[in-house]
Amino acid sequence: MAELPKFIRPVTAADAEIGHAVTLDTPLTLDCGKTLSPITIAYMTYGTLNAARSNAVLICHALTGDQFAASDHPVTGKPGWWETMVGPGKPIDTDRFFVICSNVVGGCMGTTGPAETNPETGKPYGLSFPVVTIRDMVRAQAMLLDHLGIEKVLSVIGGSMGGMQVLQWAASFPERVVSAVPIACAARHSAQNIAFHEVGRQAIMADPDWKNGTYQLHGTMPAKGLAVARMAAHITYLSEAALQRKFGRNLQNREQISFGFGPDFQIESYLRHQGMTFVDRFDANSYLYITRAMDYFDLAAEQGGTLAEAFHGSKTRFLIVSFTSDWLFPTSENKLVAHALNANAATVSFVEIETDRGHDAFLLDEPEMFTTVRGFLNAVANTVGA
Amino acid sequence: MAELPKFIRPVTAADAEIGHAVTLDTPLTLDCGKTLSPITIAYMTYGTLNAARSNAVLICHALTGDQFAASDHPVTGKPGWWETMVGPGKPIDTDRFFVICSNVVGGCMGTTGPAETNPETGKPYGLSFPVVTIRDMVRAQAMLLDHLGIEKVLSVIGGSMGGMQVLQWAASFPERVVSAVPIACAARHSAQNIAFHEVGRQAIMADPDWKNGTYQLHGTMPAKGLAVARMAAHITYLSEAALQRKFGRNLQNREQISFGFGPDFQIESYLRHQGMTFVDRFDANSYLYITRAMDYFDLAAEQGGTLAEAFHGSKTRFLIVSFTSDWLFPTSENKLVAHALNANAATVSFVEIETDRGHDAFLLDEPEMFTTVRGFLNAVANTVGA
Repeated sequence: MAELPKFIRPVTAADAEIGHAVTLDTPLTLDCGKTLSPITIAYMTYGTLNAARSNAVLICHALTGDQFAASDHPVTGKPGWWETMVGPGKPIDTDRFFVICSNVVGGCMGTTGPAETNPETGKPYGLSFPVVTIRDMVRAQAMLLDHLGIEKVLSVIGGSMGGMQVLQWAASFPERVVSAVPIACAARHSAQNIAFHEVGRQAIMADPDWKNGTYQLHGTMPAKGLAVARMAAHITYLSEAALQRKFGRNLQNREQISFGFGPDFQIESYLRHQGMTFVDRFDANSYLYITRAMDYFDLAAEQGGTLAEAFHGSKTRFLIVSFTSDWLFPTSENKLVAHALNANAATVSFVEIETDRGHDAFLLDEPEMFTTVRGFLNAVANTVGA
Repeated sequence: MAELPKFIRPVTAADAEIGHAVTLDTPLTLDCGKTLSPITIAYMTYGTLNAARSNAVLICHALTGDQFAASDHPVTGKPGWWETMVGPGKPIDTDRFFVICSNVVGGCMGTTGPAETNPETGKPYGLSFPVVTIRDMVRAQAMLLDHLGIEKVLSVIGGSMGGMQVLQWAASFPERVVSAVPIACAARHSAQNIAFHEVGRQAIMADPDWKNGTYQLHGTMPAKGLAVARMAAHITYLSEAALQRKFGRNLQNREQISFGFGPDFQIESYLRHQGMTFVDRFDANSYLYITRAMDYFDLAAEQGGTLAEAFHGSKTRFLIVSFTSDWLFPTSENKLVAHALNANAATVSFVEIETDRGHDAFLLDEPEMFTTVRGFLNAVANTVGA
């Protein structure tokens, strides 16, 4: 980790062009009982809202995603994280649909989160930021839609933690959601997934530069701890088969092993790179808060333990997508959602896509996913005349 | 991690009753080209060597194991790591067999390793300790057998990294190995496994108390980094199903989530405990060296890429054991070894045991493993009249 810059300023709204942002005076009441007020929501839109306001598609991002689904990231300069899926002529076609994507509450790309200033103290929130949930993220998105004058969305779509938000949308605001596309997700976070998140959090909190979350005040940043957290998480996003296919035991710029602790293997070099670049664009405290929101997600628990109750009487049309080699959110977890919907006689399609790319498949070039989502979305739009 | 003691002295030979130890003047020439001399090997024996010296069974330990296979650990006071398998009347029956188990080179329970004193400098080796391989570990064990006057062992047995050593024994010293029992292992470390090891090493090296491996000289120890490494590794030792069955989303000593970063979930509390207790008994530099030895293990590479060549003409009898839910060393990897042996018309039995306990199953109460190993070992012993 010696290559890491000694000090990196956490990414905050002030660092970059964050697209649109709106500061709402309506307090956001959170699951923990606290309120956030005022709350700023940073978001991007793509395409044009039609006169009937019936062609809006809300995209929910994953743990380390942001509002830049279909346009260059202002910090990294890289293409949007879902440009394969969203854009003119793409499966989520911005020539037809008005796409909205907002940074989640607790995030670090302009929406109110732990790196932002606490108006009560004039200092960054840090650990004084309240612990938020997936439901809180969805509540904030609903406030954004209110602000935009959008009563109903044609679809809510997202993968991984984005899929959790999709499920929460369908449960919390069924009347506002014509269709829902949860991809590679689950209705509850598993013990193994909580375990991996806990390792990441402990890595961050073990870094002395974390300073109990007050690193911004000290001009430090727990870059090493955050990089280790990212490295561990990154392994879970890929499948064993894909790692073996892409890297195997290939050596990195050398003919033979070095008998040392440098990055002899390509997989080591790749992981170190993933860790190092991540800390340039993500806030360590945000990582704590957002992983915690995922850990806490258990849609059935809200309903006395019965997942089906979450979708009682739902008129929303569902398309559930999973990937064969995803071991973070395996098909079995996605199927539990389908079963709960079936128990409510909801309209649900379920597609398991054959791929060796693991969880990250939802971000990659997966033609079957593209065809399926495109077909579903157009069919729903045709039905409602959007 | 606040509960961790601020300073923990690394475990070294001096810390504990290490059983037997022998210091050999014969230099150990390593794969890296360097030599270690003198070399101390700490070991335990159980049972009695018969007059013909034909009843010796060598047990090889895993990454964080040691020589205390069948007797209390002198640091933790806990039972030996394989007391389910080794002892009077046990599958590896010390009433019949003379069992030897030695701490590996690079280890931290008395055998020469990075925490021991470098005779050339009078200081702890630290990172000046040469990077060792599985073959080096086996060479040291062979020197120990020479010292004990044991030409041939009835069996070499081990799980995980112990299984790697078993395979290396069969490849390096086929004439000295009557039978071999590699359990839950592979003939090469996979990309995913190298990746997890790299995360652990980066966690240790990110800890400022590691001090480039010289922590002993500074009176510090990278306890937080080592604990994170252990936590990440521990997840890989268990199966998703076992984690869900044992912990699920159960809360730890509380009725509801705390909306904080404490150990709300039992799985978090469990992992933290695993991390904290590990640092009391294991040296951080040893962890670096031994994980590296596993990463470097690729038995086929020694033979120009053809695994079968490693066992050419082998007269050793093999029993290979794998576990259905082991995703660290899955059945497919164990089968590659069986195929290579079959290609040499070697005598090989292969047993895949149905269990949801993951990789750690080899350390647990698995009756089918007990029955299989007991039967195999007695059959081999009967054949050679041991």
